[in-house]
Amino acid sequence: MKSYNVCLKDTVKTFTKCLFYSLFDCEQEEAHSDYLEKTFLKILSSLEIENGEAIWESFKAELPKVRLQLDLDAVAFENNDPASYSLEEIYLAYPGFHAISIYRLSNTLYKLNVPILPRMMSEYIHGITGIDIHPGATIGESFYIDHGTGIVIGETSIIKDNVKIYQGVTLGGIQVSKDLAKVKRHPTIESNVCIYANATILGGDIVIGANSIIGANVWITHSVPENSLVTYKTEIKIRPKKNGIRE
Amino acid sequence: MKSYNVCLKDTVKTFTKCLFYSLFDCEQEEAHSDYLEKTFLKILSSLEIENGEAIWESFKAELPKVRLQLDLDAVAFENNDPASYSLEEIYLAYPGFHAISIYRLSNTLYKLNVPILPRMMSEYIHGITGIDIHPGATIGESFYIDHGTGIVIGETSIIKDNVKIYQGVTLGGIQVSKDLAKVKRHPTIESNVCIYANATILGGDIVIGANSIIGANVWITHSVPENSLVTYKTEIKIRPKKNGIRE
Amino acid sequence: MKSYNVCLKDTVKTFTKCLFYSLFDCEQEEAHSDYLEKTFLKILSSLEIENGEAIWESFKAELPKVRLQLDLDAVAFENNDPASYSLEEIYLAYPGFHAISIYRLSNTLYKLNVPILPRMMSEYIHGITGIDIHPGATIGESFYIDHGTGIVIGETSIIKDNVKIYQGVTLGGIQVSKDLAKVKRHPTIESNVCIYANATILGGDIVIGANSIIGANVWITHSVPENSLVTYKTEIKIRPKKNGIRE
Repeated sequence: MKSYNVCLKDTVKTFTKCLFYSLFDCEQEEAHSDYLEKTFLKILSSLEIENGEAIWESFKAELPKVRLQLDLDAVAFENNDPASYSLEEIYLAYPGFHAISIYRLSNTLYKLNVPILPRMMSEYIHGITGIDIHPGATIGESFYIDHGTGIVIGETSIIKDNVKIYQGVTLGGIQVSKDLAKVKRHPTIESNVCIYANATILGGDIVIGANSIIGANVWITHSVPENSLVTYKTEIKIRPKKNGIRE
Repeated sequence: MKSYNVCLKDTVKTFTKCLFYSLFDCEQEEAHSDYLEKTFLKILSSLEIENGEAIWESFKAELPKVRLQLDLDAVAFENNDPASYSLEEIYLAYPGFHAISIYRLSNTLYKLNVPILPRMMSEYIHGITGIDIHPGATIGESFYIDHGTGIVIGETSIIKDNVKIYQGVTLGGIQVSKDLAKVKRHPTIESNVCIYANATILGGDIVIGANSIIGANVWITHSVPENSLVTYKTEIKIRPKKNGIRE
Repeated sequence: MKSYNVCLKDTVKTFTKCLFYSLFDCEQEEAHSDYLEKTFLKILSSLEIENGEAIWESFKAELPKVRLQLDLDAVAFENNDPASYSLEEIYLAYPGFHAISIYRLSNTLYKLNVPILPRMMSEYIHGITGIDIHPGATIGESFYIDHGTGIVIGETSIIKDNVKIYQGVTLGGIQVSKDLAKVKRHPTIESNVCIYANATILGGDIVIGANSIIGANVWITHSVPENSLVTYKTEIKIRPKKNGIRE
């Protein structure tokens, strides 16, 4: 039987954690800079990826820009969450911020055409936060995620600036077949859109127009014009309780 | 660029894990009592919180009461889950019990006005269980959570005694704006209510009356009288399969 | 107060991780074979389970079959996911594959009548992936899970071959009371069924007929004939945005 180097999961976990620490804490950055480079080269060599050193240099050169973007994201968190206590709390205790951080790092490697490693990084943070953002997704500035568990953002999604997304939201594909690998399969979300909990938006040619609000539990497979309010026409039945919930 | 002490996440993770072990295992309690105190003081000092020792003493004094509450919760689990095998299994293998344990610990610190640390603890267990209970929520006795992934219980929620909640349930805010920080933004759930999977209950002035059953997938933004059965009037369409799922 | 050996969670976590590594990587298998046996015996002894050595031998004898099944699952992943890059990526970075792996291992122990440990293993992987598969569930060949967060597959579920399941799907019980412990409480899914995101299928006498497609968000408590397409008749309201989302 073929062997797979599955314990690379552990190496990537420690590497990604350390990279996150180094990005926000200059003491950690100094302490870990050798470790990070060595481990990066080791991971790439395990995955039989060539030019590790050149890729590392390109990646490192992008990190200050990634940090600036994340500082903007953190401000969006502070401005949007009534339960937030301080900017420091965002960096230390917000899973949405943690997930966006690892997404911006993995997306940088994805754009450098590194295979597998970006996906291993996104699975590391999916494991911690329940937020599954494919490293190939395109996400603008000041992105805000609240709670986050169950969010899925597919590979070809495009999210513009100042978008807010709550737990359980799916930006997914409507037909899932292997021959669609190269096609845009996931939605486009224009700027200033807010998507409430558990809404599902499916399809590669779908555009949610700027400034729209998508209500909780809404299920959309068609485009929506800008400045829309989309709600879910639910009917519930309230009656005195008798025998269980089956009718 | 400003440094944030993000690797405090690791310290809080180990501290919280150890605290959980000490609460239920007297051997662990002895082995770790020095470590717990020292680490607590170190975390508070990192967060620039004063009076660490006094807070630790107050916190320690509350632990026996927390343990008693959790033993009541464990009995609720045993009584409610047809798949449970023994009381020991609840302590060792139930994510809902694990999440309630860390909630009751973090809530105790929250009530002692400790900032950030309770939220870091709740994010530690949110990461493990997918259950996001804000440390500020108020939860009565004999609380039962099944499966749990995707549950969100907001900061100002009030949950009375003997309540049961399934996976994906949100007790959330209906309007999320920063100036509502001091207002009750999340629902009140009276005693003996059962809320099935993926139900969403939104709004700070909403009360779900005692003994009510809220069916799976129900979406509620208004109060419900006691002894109600609330179901979701779903319509599904069943037809022979032809070409995919888009109409 | 009674002590519970809660720190066994850590032992089971390391054991399960190591078992997964050994299953797919022959270097790891050699390096860890002593550790795995010793730790298995230690865990069983902690749980006061007798005949540890005989159980270990029976378990070890099943592992090659488990590996073969998982290699079939991996091929199903590769064939179904348009975003997959290579077979190696499935083993290294797919949470659904990780969850199915631990399920097949825990199910093998469940069928050997080992108590608690299989559930601790399923909670270990539920913690990482958000996918909650009870070790007692029966699952056929070539099972595919995409994204996965929020999936719940109950103890008495039966899933035949070539089934595909997306994030947030529940195969659950419709009435949850303790006296139903020995009854089939969860659905049967026939071969070649595809169940899209957040669908909920409840009840022990429910059968989803072969080759059916269950659309996203569908809520089913009755059986469905083979070759069906089941969709959710949603109504959404799209209008120009004015003041928030409450009507």
